Amino acid sequence: MTTVQQSWIESANDGVTHFPLQNLPYGIFSPNGQGPRVGVAIGDFILDLSVLDEAGLLPACVKGVFGGATLNAFIALGKPAWTETRQRLTSMLAADDTTLHPKSALHEQALVPMAWATLHLPVDIPGYTDFYSSREHATNVGRMFRDPDNALLPNWLEIPIGYNGRASSVVVSGTELRRPKGQIKPPNAPRPVFTACQKLDYELEMAFIVGKPSTLGEPVSTAAAAGHMFGMVILNDWSARDIQQWEYVPLGPFNSKGFGTSISPWVVTMDALEPFRRDNPVQSPEPLAYLQQPERNAYDIALEVSLRPEGAAQATTVCRTNFKAMYWTMVQQLAHHTVSGCNVRVGDLMGSGTISGTTPDSYGSLLELTRNGAEPLTLADGSKRGFLEDGDEVVMAGWCQGDGYRVGFGEVAGKILPAL
Amino acid sequence: MTTVQQSWIESANDGVTHFPLQNLPYGIFSPNGQGPRVGVAIGDFILDLSVLDEAGLLPACVKGVFGGATLNAFIALGKPAWTETRQRLTSMLAADDTTLHPKSALHEQALVPMAWATLHLPVDIPGYTDFYSSREHATNVGRMFRDPDNALLPNWLEIPIGYNGRASSVVVSGTELRRPKGQIKPPNAPRPVFTACQKLDYELEMAFIVGKPSTLGEPVSTAAAAGHMFGMVILNDWSARDIQQWEYVPLGPFNSKGFGTSISPWVVTMDALEPFRRDNPVQSPEPLAYLQQPERNAYDIALEVSLRPEGAAQATTVCRTNFKAMYWTMVQQLAHHTVSGCNVRVGDLMGSGTISGTTPDSYGSLLELTRNGAEPLTLADGSKRGFLEDGDEVVMAGWCQGDGYRVGFGEVAGKILPAL
Repeated sequence: MTTVQQSWIESANDGVTHFPLQNLPYGIFSPNGQGPRVGVAIGDFILDLSVLDEAGLLPACVKGVFGGATLNAFIALGKPAWTETRQRLTSMLAADDTTLHPKSALHEQALVPMAWATLHLPVDIPGYTDFYSSREHATNVGRMFRDPDNALLPNWLEIPIGYNGRASSVVVSGTELRRPKGQIKPPNAPRPVFTACQKLDYELEMAFIVGKPSTLGEPVSTAAAAGHMFGMVILNDWSARDIQQWEYVPLGPFNSKGFGTSISPWVVTMDALEPFRRDNPVQSPEPLAYLQQPERNAYDIALEVSLRPEGAAQATTVCRTNFKAMYWTMVQQLAHHTVSGCNVRVGDLMGSGTISGTTPDSYGSLLELTRNGAEPLTLADGSKRGFLEDGDEVVMAGWCQGDGYRVGFGEVAGKILPAL
Repeated sequence: MTTVQQSWIESANDGVTHFPLQNLPYGIFSPNGQGPRVGVAIGDFILDLSVLDEAGLLPACVKGVFGGATLNAFIALGKPAWTETRQRLTSMLAADDTTLHPKSALHEQALVPMAWATLHLPVDIPGYTDFYSSREHATNVGRMFRDPDNALLPNWLEIPIGYNGRASSVVVSGTELRRPKGQIKPPNAPRPVFTACQKLDYELEMAFIVGKPSTLGEPVSTAAAAGHMFGMVILNDWSARDIQQWEYVPLGPFNSKGFGTSISPWVVTMDALEPFRRDNPVQSPEPLAYLQQPERNAYDIALEVSLRPEGAAQATTVCRTNFKAMYWTMVQQLAHHTVSGCNVRVGDLMGSGTISGTTPDSYGSLLELTRNGAEPLTLADGSKRGFLEDGDEVVMAGWCQGDGYRVGFGEVAGKILPAL
């Protein structure tokens, strides 16, 4: 039996917290009444890295990068700085360490109860790309909107299909979003109408954050791609299905997606995810050479989506799935993105695409779960949902299950406000 | 007969310069061996605003914003600061002004010959959106790639169609770009091949730069949209047609566009363009209410594209057209972009889409000029072009013709390097 390394912070050791000593995800938070700074989640607390830095307890190479409103300055320092900081924090929070334990003035200043803090968008995102890498999702969507017999388009098995998303409207978990208005074309009407979206949906995704930039004109190989990733978050790609259906030909989704995208506040590092690498999915046909990957690049991340109507006593879990089922890996996505010479920058957000499994309870969107609204779900309070109603709150959670501990992402939550 | 207001800088008064007293576009430049700062083009010179600011000659509201490597800090100050600065510069450069004339130490420091300066990307671009607003271009493309009899898709006359572009690879005029590689699907092959693009093209576009941000969830009306625009540039949306054709369904162009987009270095302000407003194009059907525009929002901007093979003595002009022919206006583009609640930010770049007129010599891409390569152009040196070859330089220029003067954009130039 493996012994799990413990922290002197009790709430980090219960085996179910998302934030044990093995995780140490980075985020941006404001303690009560103070400005934003970098923190690390540990059990029910946030460790204030700007305080530790001022106290001279962090590596010299990260001096001064933790006092700002984004993680970008830290991330830009590169992998040696990430590794050294992780080692220092792991050691400082381990059960036998006395730097911050027992209680001292520094301890009081550096450890903030999570409940007292406001969490912010963790990174300044210079570019947001969204992929479409679940074979089950692409098949389900193709079946409904295109040809049931040829649901998967011919390019899908060759290309990790992706498109440029809108970075300006990426928001942190907890941000309420207004139901969008837009052009919707009723099937038999001669012209579209301008109205509030009637088919508002979520999409369950994961996303990675670029940690190492690339140069314009120089592709990143699959062998090098993992080295360009800093960490991951959960992403909710809110989608207006009726707006999308009318607008998306020929240049892709635009207003149907651009009104908001939510991400979880804690960036879980690739280092923390390392034990959860799994074999790559079988790909047939064998991908073109530039997409072949030498390493195991799938990750075992359990995911759940729940929905809570306004005022309902409890949320209903509507989806359970796993990130490891994705057809195209993140490494393949990044290699494809840059193979044309397109450069990536520190903080770029790369969404996976909706994560759907093979069984109906593992579909990552209401579109798929309710067959475009035709088969509504019944929630715990007895109400039915084809698509989202005003006041609905969607919560997505994800974690890697270790032996006696979890490396978790926390959650990304968002509530729908009525249209203006 | 109108008397044109003159400057004491002789080269600004010749009637054909792009940079007379009436223009005063902003850019970022490095004088010989010094760091980047904000300048204004005037005749053959650049006026160094950081020097004028230090000398106390600019309005107090712009103090300190001209020493940086982007225009964003200045733009973010808003319209009153733009107007006051323009008035001050107009007065300082007018023929009868003695602030910098005759020559003095300050004059020597503040006026840099354009030939001695390096020009940089003028703005930090948090988001790049590209529209598709020329009816002729959309029709030409639809005819070749979809249905010759129904070339215009049903949504085109209702929506100013646009998509999110890739901001990381927007570069300034003069940057050489490498021919991209990617997946290309030969018509009768069972699978795509990975190879260098064989159908490399340019697209002639204009773009506006957002000067006033909007709030997530709050649409910008057509009446308010013009107030959110700072200025305009010429944009070359380089396109890999063979990669595009295979990848673009269903999420739109991605690698076929993301390898590079070039813009002209001087941002011509909306104030300078004001005399060149024209009547809006006739739109039928009448747009939905949120797209109706109270003002005249078309602009009369003459545009030219020329192509010069490597080592050729002269360039060949391959296109002459005008921006005023665009079907959807910039005001409609911005109103549509934000009607879902999507927010815009200072520095956002919004491309018009390829600008094609009604006659073949006014088409804004080689795809259209050569009918997808089937009818090659003959250049001045006798060589033929279906698409771009390695070493080709594409130069786009644009100007508004006033009565005795031009308000010009200069040019955006780019040369193609061989694939890696």
